[in-house]
Amino acid sequence: MENRTLRVFKTMSYREKPNSEELAFGRTFTDHMFVMDYSDAEGWHDAKIVPYEPLKIDPAAMVFHYGQSVFEGLKAYLNPQGEPLLFRPRKNIARLNRSNERLCIPTLDEDFLLHALKQLIYIEKEWIPKADGTSLYIRPMIISTEPFLGVAPSKEYKLVIILSPVGAYYKEGINPIKIAVENDFVRAVRGGTGEAKTGGNYASSLKAQEVAGKEGYSQVLWLDGVEKRYIEEVGSMNVFFKIGDEVVTPELNGSILSGITRSSVIQLLKHWGISVRESKITIDELYQEYQKGNVEEVFGSGTAAVISPIGQLDWNDHKMFFNNGQTGKLSKELYETLTGIQYGRLNDPFNWIEKVATQQTMNKVG
Amino acid sequence: MENRTLRVFKTMSYREKPNSEELAFGRTFTDHMFVMDYSDAEGWHDAKIVPYEPLKIDPAAMVFHYGQSVFEGLKAYLNPQGEPLLFRPRKNIARLNRSNERLCIPTLDEDFLLHALKQLIYIEKEWIPKADGTSLYIRPMIISTEPFLGVAPSKEYKLVIILSPVGAYYKEGINPIKIAVENDFVRAVRGGTGEAKTGGNYASSLKAQEVAGKEGYSQVLWLDGVEKRYIEEVGSMNVFFKIGDEVVTPELNGSILSGITRSSVIQLLKHWGISVRESKITIDELYQEYQKGNVEEVFGSGTAAVISPIGQLDWNDHKMFFNNGQTGKLSKELYETLTGIQYGRLNDPFNWIEKVATQQTMNKVG
Ligand SMILES: Cc1ncc(COP(=O)(O)O)c(C=O)c1O
Ligand SMILES: Cc1ncc(COP(=O)(O)O)c(C=O)c1O
Repeated sequence: MENRTLRVFKTMSYREKPNSEELAFGRTFTDHMFVMDYSDAEGWHDAKIVPYEPLKIDPAAMVFHYGQSVFEGLKAYLNPQGEPLLFRPRKNIARLNRSNERLCIPTLDEDFLLHALKQLIYIEKEWIPKADGTSLYIRPMIISTEPFLGVAPSKEYKLVIILSPVGAYYKEGINPIKIAVENDFVRAVRGGTGEAKTGGNYASSLKAQEVAGKEGYSQVLWLDGVEKRYIEEVGSMNVFFKIGDEVVTPELNGSILSGITRSSVIQLLKHWGISVRESKITIDELYQEYQKGNVEEVFGSGTAAVISPIGQLDWNDHKMFFNNGQTGKLSKELYETLTGIQYGRLNDPFNWIEKVATQQTMNKVG
Repeated sequence: MENRTLRVFKTMSYREKPNSEELAFGRTFTDHMFVMDYSDAEGWHDAKIVPYEPLKIDPAAMVFHYGQSVFEGLKAYLNPQGEPLLFRPRKNIARLNRSNERLCIPTLDEDFLLHALKQLIYIEKEWIPKADGTSLYIRPMIISTEPFLGVAPSKEYKLVIILSPVGAYYKEGINPIKIAVENDFVRAVRGGTGEAKTGGNYASSLKAQEVAGKEGYSQVLWLDGVEKRYIEEVGSMNVFFKIGDEVVTPELNGSILSGITRSSVIQLLKHWGISVRESKITIDELYQEYQKGNVEEVFGSGTAAVISPIGQLDWNDHKMFFNNGQTGKLSKELYETLTGIQYGRLNDPFNWIEKVATQQTMNKVG
């Protein structure tokens, strides 16, 4: 980090805050955003908090053409005392840097970025909604801005953090969703970018979601791109299967995202003495276990939905129904515990929570 | 096309044109660009030619996060009479629409887009450079602009066409390049987006190019993502092998781009009575033929480089040298014929050339 100054330019026209009972996901944004630029000469520089406004970007900027970009997603929550909390933010920042490496984007000073994020949350704390299940979604992104049409890593970048007060991600709330195993389209493959949080992975998933959506599914379950047998993940969630007394989740194989909720679920389950297996699991294997009546619960894990029970999974003509379409006991316990910790209502045995100090120096750091 | 009006707003400050002997690729842009917007309510609308300037885009616009974007690349050339020519532009526009379909982007009226493109070229015709091998590179792109963080197809888009006077794409010019077979990274896979011209395919290729570049290679040769055996294509070129009396090129399998230069090369070869085979070809097979002394020429084909002879191909420890590192006879003939047609110096037996009329109505169409 060549320059650790963080300047703040407050807005002159504050926006109206939405009613916290009526929040959608990702449509409303707060008054300010954090921006920082990169050039080969100056490194990451010119960090500042500015009014939320359109970016002015050259039409030849590489992000528009060659998709060199990465992003992250995490949330700020209010505890019962009204203090803003972050859930494992260092994990997101570390993952951002891993995505950067895969996409040939210069990495960031993680401490400085966390500091900047906290400053931004502090300034926007009135935007953190108070109603149950609501939070302030945090979206850091890095885009390549060099105006150049050659296919090569950009020499200029812009990092932006925007904030959006959100309700629940899934319209269905914590009710079980219905998903379909995807047989035709592939999201990511060994040797590709599946492990990175980069736009291309999501762009390539839209078509499958559109097709599945028309058939009444909320999401698709992705299989590996090579053998089309190994279960990978769901749209923006990792996936867990309670098979008998064991919980199974696909191992991190380079083509699925290493979810922070996933890692928290695994840690919690182990803490509770429940056996967890991270391994390859094929869709045939799952179906066999289902036929034997062993698959008790299936759920997805992700920042947006936290825990999302899966009530029905269709694999071609094979329809699998789990736990009578009800939210399972374990899914419910995980949801309650994770959100309890996130909202500061429960004890935090793993030190997952970082407070956003309520008094901050607003000028210099480091 | 809900609204076929094309408005023109000329710039007040013309830029200085670069010396046409010193052109790089894709760094200089002309005075004007074409823009058109899409909304669900209005369809594609508000088509206009405006001064080249930064786009103002909401930081929550989907293109920055989920990479929903497509692009094209073609060129305008001057014939000896100084008239601007386009090479098979309808093919590019049709491919743009195919990319749109894969990426869930609303398709375009192809006639209107060609008309708009011609208007833009007409206005910018002084920007088409005159030196040998130079041309005006045309870059249409479509980006998703809805400010929404949900992973779903955007409801708003912007189409932009920018123009860049260009010299040769490869620093080495028409001299043979050295490339490496990529064993670790994967660009695209069956069921993915390889066939579409979308940013994510290029973003995912950067790392492999960076690694290969450090080892002295110009590009990598991609193998298929499933078996890592079948030859696909090079960075931004399709690839051809002259093996004995036959020319072989990987068949269009859904994960490689259907190059317009590729299709033109195939047509020319057939026209010349040379046998062309579009089929699967493995890297082992190629190496075996190489060892038997049968691989006479290898070259890439693409709009930027036209024909790019490949002098050396390294596959792990196996180094293959073709035609003594010289540009082969067939590569040279193809290059001369293609560029001859493109620049209007040769007869155009296939009707590949579209003239940009030199008198155009500037207001209404259709
Ligand atoms: C593809 C994908 N998988 C999994 C996840 C879950 O990750 P996390 O728990 O860190 O939100 C996400 C969302 O962030 C995702 O986009
Ligand atoms: C991945 C890829 N393959 C092949 C090509 C060659 O296609 P065309 O001949 O249409 O330029 C390109 C460039 O356009 C490309 O980007």
